[in-house]
Amino acid sequence: MSSNLPKIAWVGLGIMGSPMAENLIKAGYSVTGFTLEQEKLDRLAANGGTAASSIAEAVADADVVITMVPADPHVKAVVLGDDGVIAHAKQGATIIDMSSITPQTSIAVAEAAAKADKGLKVLDAPVSGGEAGAVEAVLSIMVGGEQADFEAAKPILEALGKTIILCGPHGAGQTVKAANQLIVAVNIQACAEAVVFLEKSGVDLNAALEVLNGGLAGSTVLTRKKDNFKNRDFAPGFRIDLHHKDMGIVTDAARSVGAALPVGAVVAQLVASLRAQGDGGLDHSALLRAVERLSGDQVA
Amino acid sequence: MSSNLPKIAWVGLGIMGSPMAENLIKAGYSVTGFTLEQEKLDRLAANGGTAASSIAEAVADADVVITMVPADPHVKAVVLGDDGVIAHAKQGATIIDMSSITPQTSIAVAEAAAKADKGLKVLDAPVSGGEAGAVEAVLSIMVGGEQADFEAAKPILEALGKTIILCGPHGAGQTVKAANQLIVAVNIQACAEAVVFLEKSGVDLNAALEVLNGGLAGSTVLTRKKDNFKNRDFAPGFRIDLHHKDMGIVTDAARSVGAALPVGAVVAQLVASLRAQGDGGLDHSALLRAVERLSGDQVA
Amino acid sequence: MSSNLPKIAWVGLGIMGSPMAENLIKAGYSVTGFTLEQEKLDRLAANGGTAASSIAEAVADADVVITMVPADPHVKAVVLGDDGVIAHAKQGATIIDMSSITPQTSIAVAEAAAKADKGLKVLDAPVSGGEAGAVEAVLSIMVGGEQADFEAAKPILEALGKTIILCGPHGAGQTVKAANQLIVAVNIQACAEAVVFLEKSGVDLNAALEVLNGGLAGSTVLTRKKDNFKNRDFAPGFRIDLHHKDMGIVTDAARSVGAALPVGAVVAQLVASLRAQGDGGLDHSALLRAVERLSGDQVA
Amino acid sequence: MSSNLPKIAWVGLGIMGSPMAENLIKAGYSVTGFTLEQEKLDRLAANGGTAASSIAEAVADADVVITMVPADPHVKAVVLGDDGVIAHAKQGATIIDMSSITPQTSIAVAEAAAKADKGLKVLDAPVSGGEAGAVEAVLSIMVGGEQADFEAAKPILEALGKTIILCGPHGAGQTVKAANQLIVAVNIQACAEAVVFLEKSGVDLNAALEVLNGGLAGSTVLTRKKDNFKNRDFAPGFRIDLHHKDMGIVTDAARSVGAALPVGAVVAQLVASLRAQGDGGLDHSALLRAVERLSGDQVA
Repeated sequence: MSSNLPKIAWVGLGIMGSPMAENLIKAGYSVTGFTLEQEKLDRLAANGGTAASSIAEAVADADVVITMVPADPHVKAVVLGDDGVIAHAKQGATIIDMSSITPQTSIAVAEAAAKADKGLKVLDAPVSGGEAGAVEAVLSIMVGGEQADFEAAKPILEALGKTIILCGPHGAGQTVKAANQLIVAVNIQACAEAVVFLEKSGVDLNAALEVLNGGLAGSTVLTRKKDNFKNRDFAPGFRIDLHHKDMGIVTDAARSVGAALPVGAVVAQLVASLRAQGDGGLDHSALLRAVERLSGDQVA
Repeated sequence: MSSNLPKIAWVGLGIMGSPMAENLIKAGYSVTGFTLEQEKLDRLAANGGTAASSIAEAVADADVVITMVPADPHVKAVVLGDDGVIAHAKQGATIIDMSSITPQTSIAVAEAAAKADKGLKVLDAPVSGGEAGAVEAVLSIMVGGEQADFEAAKPILEALGKTIILCGPHGAGQTVKAANQLIVAVNIQACAEAVVFLEKSGVDLNAALEVLNGGLAGSTVLTRKKDNFKNRDFAPGFRIDLHHKDMGIVTDAARSVGAALPVGAVVAQLVASLRAQGDGGLDHSALLRAVERLSGDQVA
Repeated sequence: MSSNLPKIAWVGLGIMGSPMAENLIKAGYSVTGFTLEQEKLDRLAANGGTAASSIAEAVADADVVITMVPADPHVKAVVLGDDGVIAHAKQGATIIDMSSITPQTSIAVAEAAAKADKGLKVLDAPVSGGEAGAVEAVLSIMVGGEQADFEAAKPILEALGKTIILCGPHGAGQTVKAANQLIVAVNIQACAEAVVFLEKSGVDLNAALEVLNGGLAGSTVLTRKKDNFKNRDFAPGFRIDLHHKDMGIVTDAARSVGAALPVGAVVAQLVASLRAQGDGGLDHSALLRAVERLSGDQVA
Repeated sequence: MSSNLPKIAWVGLGIMGSPMAENLIKAGYSVTGFTLEQEKLDRLAANGGTAASSIAEAVADADVVITMVPADPHVKAVVLGDDGVIAHAKQGATIIDMSSITPQTSIAVAEAAAKADKGLKVLDAPVSGGEAGAVEAVLSIMVGGEQADFEAAKPILEALGKTIILCGPHGAGQTVKAANQLIVAVNIQACAEAVVFLEKSGVDLNAALEVLNGGLAGSTVLTRKKDNFKNRDFAPGFRIDLHHKDMGIVTDAARSVGAALPVGAVVAQLVASLRAQGDGGLDHSALLRAVERLSGDQVA
């Protein structure tokens, strides 16, 4: 495909990365991907992308390199490693890391890119919206970095999400993502406590949740997770294991800037507790199970 | 005014009660009001209602008696007292208590009405939406009682609110209102912790709140209270003192049914703390001040 | 038995009351008892006391009336009721209520006694030390009331306990007992979290608890409950159900005086949770089970 | 001084390290010390020790090297660094790290020592008891490592403390120290909440604390910190800043082994909050100030 659009390398083709890369292809971009699972590479190729056999090969010719991997250690390996993105990216490339990691690692990526001294630009751009948001290209994207680099990258991000906002310098995207995960977990916990209280009080849960969502208690969590709560359907969605990782990020980051999280800290313990109880693979709405157990309910 | 509409008595003409009674008048109802402040009675009369000089006088001729008073003791006095609504209501009248009180007291009202043996019908119908919702007649109304009584009263309630839902038997309205206040307080606390964390992290707060509200972290609290947080504007709105009362209701009610509120209990302490620190007259979004103080910020 | 010692009536002969009354008999006092269980009355008679068939009969001739019943409603019935202690006590008698109840009820008892206008004196004198402390007469006794009444009653209390201290006016004994229960529950919870952490970390628990108890982490809880923790032996001792009642007293009392209990409130939820999970009949050291469950351990 | 006792090198002569090293000298040991402050070296020399000008010089001839430094990074530099203890210790020496650090770092020290392949033995041996315990040689010492190495080192440790216990393998001493700090912080918080509650309730605090300490609520914290609470005397003692570091260690360690700390996590937030409010230099009994502020008291 001949085009004036920037050439894109995509590293990390998991549940989120695969549909995001495919959305770029649909938008007309040329995408060369790399990941460790051959099956995901085959899927990318079948959908119009190009499979590379190494990071070096994937990024060699790319104007923009996008990374989407699970956690800090993966970003350190994939971006900062000897055979990683910074080592092999071409002069002047833009690196957009869309993984959810600590702000400190995003800052370290920016510093390493500057040290490489080949005009690399860096943005941290974690997302909110889950697998559905990735598939439908309606993610919220929280960006940290330079204004000019953000403007240049924005058309690409617009093929992936709906709300795309520059939040501050390097790491700011991660900070806002951390705040997002804090609010989401606490809001889920609020609903979980309310649901158990309502059911034990003999109230009609359907009616109650409808009227609650219509007032000041309304939230996106209540809208999107209502059926999970009602049906005890905890197929992910967004897994407790990942939210556990994220609660670790936000409590550490808050500690380092001196922000108190009296409630966030309790919810972090409950998320950790769910994981310890073997529910790490369930959707984060499974915080309901933590409240049920604490309330003496039998939990299937 | 001659009409086929039921005649209404209204007891309690405070910040919420006055505009609600006026909305009934605008909808064509004949409203006779009683409260202890002459000024509020004058206002009612000026707006087309009739001022009564006692509960007995107000309810003597009423088909429907609506009470809207601050707390349990007021309902006990006004409805259950020797000179109260049940004592003086006419045969077959409907009593709708829209105060926010404990489910137990609502059940006690229903039982006392049954004992009076004159065909009284009772609904508990607390509201959510605040002064603005009362003025604009867009309240959420959570109702407990019999289905037939609910259906009969619904046209009246539709002149006061937008979402009007029967949630279960006597007391169920109060239970859902209690759950509402639980979720609202916890969601405010979630936002407050996020705001302090974001600011201390050097992020652009406007950008951050915009992107947060667009994703799974979005909520009615974030939409309506965003400016309170950003401008530290804590003019009520809904006062901490009242939310403190409500947190007492929900923690007691949850305790009595055996529902665990591990996070609600912490937030209840923070609301109580704000009150102890002299912030009881501020809007409940002032939970931000609690987090700021805990984080070492100077609070004006 | 002829003696110059005051004649004593004892109302409430449960797990605590029976051995306490017997300790008074051993100390030479004449004790007339009343309770609802014939078996307990028989036991008292067999141990040298006199069984009465009503409160009126028990207190008719008594210089000092001691009540030891489970909770507020029982004190209200037994002391304040139409056929209760105040109604039937003789002129100038002293009423010592050793039940653990709310400070408000103790104050109400004192007020009712004053109103009776027959020179009654009142002390609230709840205890700490459990069944063992009752049997061995080594209870801690926290007293509220007048200094002179305290001095007069002290010889009697010294037959029941080891540490006997006047803490303030009517209700002060209950307030200190409430504080006692707060500290005990929180200290147990501290140990429970430490035990689970130590075991999961592969540390030798015996060695660890020994060294911990020798330093600043040492406590009476750790000394007395160490074996409960190590052996998962939760035979009461002091039941969760009763500690649940007491956490309700202290959280309500703290709320009414504006004292924050950020940690006490969380522990109150955990105690309530144990009860909801069917562990209400276990010793309060069973808070370990709450932490184990939250940590994913199978709990027998 | 000629002696058969092992020769000792001491690295880190702060508030704890200086009196501890002097206790070894008093016990007849030859001690060569190193630290960065000349004044502390002069003090050691004046008390019968030998001042070295580098770690290399201090440890060159030592049979036992003891390190006592503030935190993980210092241990990593001093023990693991290129010019550190492991690099320069002689064949077969024993390294006893008495710093309070993470179990992971203690394990890393043991691994690095093994890799050095010169027969080094390693113990982690953090202490509890504070400056007074160090001066009076009554510290509690929690040891991790091999049984034989522990037995060999025990006579030295007995010159420093009173309770000296092997708790498990490398890192176990740190794990127990972390548990110690968890319990201490929670027990202080329990007392702080009780003190504020008692004072606001109008109870005689002296009487109350006496009776509380005599019963199941009694603790070493209550015994040793009673006067701090009563007099609002928060001169350290053990500083909030250090306890903040330790709460970070225990919450991280508990997270890594899957142990829930629902109450420890809240107390960690309150300790962090005190620090954010400028109270980091006060004694940890200053948790009372956190509760006072939350309860609306003016705090000097």
